[in-house]
Amino acid sequence: MSAEDFRLHGYALVDWIAEYVASLEERPVRSEVRPGDVRRALPDHAPEQPEPFEALLGDVDTVVLPGVTHWQSPYFFGYFPANASEPAILAELLSASLGVQGMLWATSPACTELETHMMDWLVEMLDLPTAFRSDGPGGGVIQDSASSATLVALIAARERATRGAANRRGVRDPLVVYASPEAHSSVEKAVRIAGIGSENLRSVPVDPGTLAMDPAALAAAIDADLAAGRIPAAVVATVGTTGTTAFDPVAEIGDICRRRGVWLHVDAAYAGAAALCPELRWINAGVEKADSYCFNPHKWMLTNFDCDAFWVADRSALVGALSILPEYLRNEATESGAVIDYRDWQIPLGRRFRALKLWFVIRHYGVSGLQAHVRSHVALAQEFAGWVEADDLFEIPVPHPLSLVCFRLRSGDDDNRELLDRVNDSGLLLSHTRVGGRLTLRMAIGGTRTESRHVERAWEVIRGLARGEAPAQMLG
Amino acid sequence: MSAEDFRLHGYALVDWIAEYVASLEERPVRSEVRPGDVRRALPDHAPEQPEPFEALLGDVDTVVLPGVTHWQSPYFFGYFPANASEPAILAELLSASLGVQGMLWATSPACTELETHMMDWLVEMLDLPTAFRSDGPGGGVIQDSASSATLVALIAARERATRGAANRRGVRDPLVVYASPEAHSSVEKAVRIAGIGSENLRSVPVDPGTLAMDPAALAAAIDADLAAGRIPAAVVATVGTTGTTAFDPVAEIGDICRRRGVWLHVDAAYAGAAALCPELRWINAGVEKADSYCFNPHKWMLTNFDCDAFWVADRSALVGALSILPEYLRNEATESGAVIDYRDWQIPLGRRFRALKLWFVIRHYGVSGLQAHVRSHVALAQEFAGWVEADDLFEIPVPHPLSLVCFRLRSGDDDNRELLDRVNDSGLLLSHTRVGGRLTLRMAIGGTRTESRHVERAWEVIRGLARGEAPAQMLG
Repeated sequence: MSAEDFRLHGYALVDWIAEYVASLEERPVRSEVRPGDVRRALPDHAPEQPEPFEALLGDVDTVVLPGVTHWQSPYFFGYFPANASEPAILAELLSASLGVQGMLWATSPACTELETHMMDWLVEMLDLPTAFRSDGPGGGVIQDSASSATLVALIAARERATRGAANRRGVRDPLVVYASPEAHSSVEKAVRIAGIGSENLRSVPVDPGTLAMDPAALAAAIDADLAAGRIPAAVVATVGTTGTTAFDPVAEIGDICRRRGVWLHVDAAYAGAAALCPELRWINAGVEKADSYCFNPHKWMLTNFDCDAFWVADRSALVGALSILPEYLRNEATESGAVIDYRDWQIPLGRRFRALKLWFVIRHYGVSGLQAHVRSHVALAQEFAGWVEADDLFEIPVPHPLSLVCFRLRSGDDDNRELLDRVNDSGLLLSHTRVGGRLTLRMAIGGTRTESRHVERAWEVIRGLARGEAPAQMLG
Repeated sequence: MSAEDFRLHGYALVDWIAEYVASLEERPVRSEVRPGDVRRALPDHAPEQPEPFEALLGDVDTVVLPGVTHWQSPYFFGYFPANASEPAILAELLSASLGVQGMLWATSPACTELETHMMDWLVEMLDLPTAFRSDGPGGGVIQDSASSATLVALIAARERATRGAANRRGVRDPLVVYASPEAHSSVEKAVRIAGIGSENLRSVPVDPGTLAMDPAALAAAIDADLAAGRIPAAVVATVGTTGTTAFDPVAEIGDICRRRGVWLHVDAAYAGAAALCPELRWINAGVEKADSYCFNPHKWMLTNFDCDAFWVADRSALVGALSILPEYLRNEATESGAVIDYRDWQIPLGRRFRALKLWFVIRHYGVSGLQAHVRSHVALAQEFAGWVEADDLFEIPVPHPLSLVCFRLRSGDDDNRELLDRVNDSGLLLSHTRVGGRLTLRMAIGGTRTESRHVERAWEVIRGLARGEAPAQMLG
């Protein structure tokens, strides 16, 4: 593509994006296509000859958009947000254009050093333990997701617990990992991948009111395994669970782990961004006792997916487990020991220049702007929770300290399922979980463009539908 | 950011990129910064207040670019290319803007269905086995890299070899994996991560002339392990090794594996794109006997990193090993069984909309354009090899059937190391490997904008420097 054509198509796409973003409010969030619809609109065979860019962009409108669930809609309240923002989008464009592959410091020093620097900035911005800073034995790295962060944390824990034997001989020792049943599914997935086995993941009971891990039960479980000759390798504590934003008592868990030499990984994937605000830093109480920690700027800090920020207090077990240096990657900088090679901090070898989007986002909004973003969503969620609580039809079964509100009709699962379907049919999007075995709706507020009027409108729709009132189609 | 500002900054960035691309030819490929230089140019603390976009873009020029090794330069001949292209760059911009997270079909059906469709297109474009198509028990998925493809292949192999026991109980059985010493380092990394252990990775000897795996030695190694009561779980064969593009004899290896029920994964990360051209499809002889296969469109098919195309002939072991369905992800489409949820085909849960870039690239160039791209690089490499062979100072120790030429001064390691340093100081970039224990230079041709004049100029520089002639600084 000539430079001139690139400019023309680039401008056209920028315009398309600006229009798409402006149209988001009018679009029903959830795609209504049925399985196979998108494929049926695509040719069976790849084109032999080039096609004009206009044809591609045209098909984005006609083929792709109908099959898109609009995660960036201000009415997207499902799952957790994956909030994108303009500076992050432009940084992704820049990263794609530079096209550097940052597996080694030497293959693009700026890719590594900007990343280390952003991870150090974040330690300060979130008031995380100084042990996570890169100027000591610890340090931070961008992973694609919290799933991968959990996996590398378990690999490091496995390395430490077996003094490297698991890497050499395979997992022969009876390793055990602990998490609550409210922990993310990626914990079980990582336990499987790492060869530890699902049966060796202990499900530590939670307090039924808060869904937070019971530390006494954890201590008892670890001690029982120790007594039986097993090797407690890691505990995964969650700061803001996926289901309900429950908070495991990290300080107590940390003491239990330290006393027994067990690796503590803290998964703050969603909630971690709240620590931008001093008044919300209680979420990280005890994190100084963790061996590793992660949160996702791609969830609630305006930085496009994928961007998980992962730290270790001591990088030796992580790097020891994941480092292999073949001849074709040998270089002077690596051998000097003066640089970080992030390929040794992650599962894949290759890596994109993702620090650019953190840099653009932090500078574009400033810390104050990011704080304002978090505060506004927390305030909106509290306001929403107030409306729900004041309504006799509904109840709120668990605490909602941040921007997720779990709520349900008092009348039972069938009614809640029907309400969820109707709400999602109306054009906005909620998701669900189970609390105490009962179907519960999740209202996760955190979209880049979600304002009070969107939350108000959502409540009108939910409230109306719960009463069998009209609004069949809110949007579109 | 307002829509108006987004347009302005977006246009400015598009212009910046067009100028960057135009300037690539003038820039020395390798960054010359020393460790710490980039960080020293960055403020110690994140800004409290927002900064203007112009300041960010300005700092890209002054802080980032000096620390960038220009992977997209036509003079980048190191490692393997990670070739980007304008349609892929624009597709990345689109993907970032839609900001969808395709963990489930339901969370954006187009993200899943376009991906499945592109993977089926590629099966046809590369003349891969029809078993890899999605309309049978097999299918394809985009991974971030071949490292991750190898890991999920081993997880699937482990699942099949232990009938699921490794996932449940952990790796308790004596599993064994086989690869040649020329296989990519990610094989050992995956063997470690999967809990199988480096000591259980057998290094199968190669033919010293071709560096291809010796199938008789493989059969003997497997049979010895079987006789000893161990469980041969997987063989990783390489189609185009990283060091020298050696080709393991996949057809023979496949027969050996099938007879013994061992999973065969074929890693064609770099070379796989060559199969776009019918005359180069010999590289995939025997691949119909593989259980899984991958190649990287991000290496040599003009699709920005990251994009690894991974297929399985039967998806049951893969999905069985990696599937976990927590309540908050339950949905009607998944439960109907009528859709693919790609989270079950990969390590992380979340995923970006990467199929867009394959779609844009294939349509922008057409199959004929992609073939022309591969053919031109192969021809340039053969021409380059001819010049090297005609020069008494040099020798070519291994075959060079595609676009990588491994060559060296006859005079020994010290001279080769010095030549490599001087060549890279001059502004272009080569990397190195060892062949028969001796330092060998790697000239990997595959840049999006690499033409004959760049290869000619590179040879002039290499030839001149080998003779102690002048060109200290070729570029910049």
